[in-house]
Amino acid sequence: MGQKVKLLISYDGTDFGGWQKQKSGKPTIQGCLEKALAQLFQEDVSVMGAGRTDAGVHANGQVAHFIAPKDPINYGLPKSLNSYTPDGIGIKAVFLAPDNFHALASAESKTYKYYIWNSPTPDALKTRYCTWVRPRLDLEHLNASSEFLLGKHDFKSFQSSGTDVQTTVREVTEARWEWQNENLALFTISGTGFLKQMVRNIVGTTLDLFHNEAPPSEILEILAKKDRRAAKKTAPPQGLQLYEVKYPTELDNKCRKL
Amino acid sequence: MGQKVKLLISYDGTDFGGWQKQKSGKPTIQGCLEKALAQLFQEDVSVMGAGRTDAGVHANGQVAHFIAPKDPINYGLPKSLNSYTPDGIGIKAVFLAPDNFHALASAESKTYKYYIWNSPTPDALKTRYCTWVRPRLDLEHLNASSEFLLGKHDFKSFQSSGTDVQTTVREVTEARWEWQNENLALFTISGTGFLKQMVRNIVGTTLDLFHNEAPPSEILEILAKKDRRAAKKTAPPQGLQLYEVKYPTELDNKCRKL
Repeated sequence: MGQKVKLLISYDGTDFGGWQKQKSGKPTIQGCLEKALAQLFQEDVSVMGAGRTDAGVHANGQVAHFIAPKDPINYGLPKSLNSYTPDGIGIKAVFLAPDNFHALASAESKTYKYYIWNSPTPDALKTRYCTWVRPRLDLEHLNASSEFLLGKHDFKSFQSSGTDVQTTVREVTEARWEWQNENLALFTISGTGFLKQMVRNIVGTTLDLFHNEAPPSEILEILAKKDRRAAKKTAPPQGLQLYEVKYPTELDNKCRKL
Repeated sequence: MGQKVKLLISYDGTDFGGWQKQKSGKPTIQGCLEKALAQLFQEDVSVMGAGRTDAGVHANGQVAHFIAPKDPINYGLPKSLNSYTPDGIGIKAVFLAPDNFHALASAESKTYKYYIWNSPTPDALKTRYCTWVRPRLDLEHLNASSEFLLGKHDFKSFQSSGTDVQTTVREVTEARWEWQNENLALFTISGTGFLKQMVRNIVGTTLDLFHNEAPPSEILEILAKKDRRAAKKTAPPQGLQLYEVKYPTELDNKCRKL
């Protein structure tokens, strides 16, 4: 077997059809990476990502792995790979990883961030990486709803259709709203794993409860129903970014940065 | 005379040919605003800006004024104006201003910010609003050079050609580099006014002195020469934003927000 390689990747999701390769439509991150690696190694390479971000969602720290068909030492990584990927993708770091490293299966936790520009008027420097919400938000209300999500729950109500997973139980270890500045609200959520569109469904639902002056505890009823129809609409993709993926220290220690 | 109106404007300069209206090429901020106001009032309107930002330069808080051909009270500002301007322009606020308000002539000071992504590898979420510099920066060196610029000086060496101004003497009240995070450096410069491309020429020159291990005091010799050829290259536009324009409190107090 060839050398396993770990990639730390950033992308501006605006012009991509999401992480996962697809036969038609906009280019995808996975597709662009596989194409770049095929150009580099002159052989087909499969790339496995830690999270399948949706179309329009960004990444500060997505992680992926591939098995190098040739010794990667001599290929000038990461510079060479950056020269083959489009501007919207930036390879932040490349590591030689141990054979048992797996971007998805080894992941211990993931952190997503969701940014909201909260003002009656738009800010042109905030439209690309934030969702614009006009009415003034009360982060205490949003935090009160979000706190109910901490811990291990069946998040079936917050899973969008079109996926096939063995269990919809996930553990959320952090779910917190804070002001970055007077008009910029940030939601940070961490957990062992996330269902399809789970973060966007949580953001959309907590915002909906606030806008409709519903008690924050209503989120418990939504969880209990285990039905997507119980939750509210999916928040738009542009405010979301996959911020960080964490792996066991034992695996990190065996990775060697190129 | 009609009612004077003050605009607080943000823009993502990436796809614009700068502030100032031009006959050909990319759309400009001034051109788009005048077009939007003409649609709104069904009459020609001239817009005067506080600073003529170059092509590709952004604005967090550009200020402009115009004389409304009709009573602006009944035109649903700022919402109506935002609906007529492209996505890259965001009107943050609209004020009824006193007759003696002038976006350029009344400005007391301006603040520009210049962002540098400082890492051997790119970050896709930083390419739009930052300039990428690979070698590790020493902000102490950059600050030592920049401090020599504080106060009143003839900045002729830092003025790009193609302008006709009465004096090239300007006063810089703040010029400071700081780390925003491990890889994000920010230069903040404030002053009574700026010459053409002065901020980009200052950034390019201080970076050049650092890269070439020149003593920071060399910037004094460059200033003394009063010749653009003495300074170094112009830093790229995408890292720069016009952050804020300040007016006398007395004028601010006479502005009424719509």
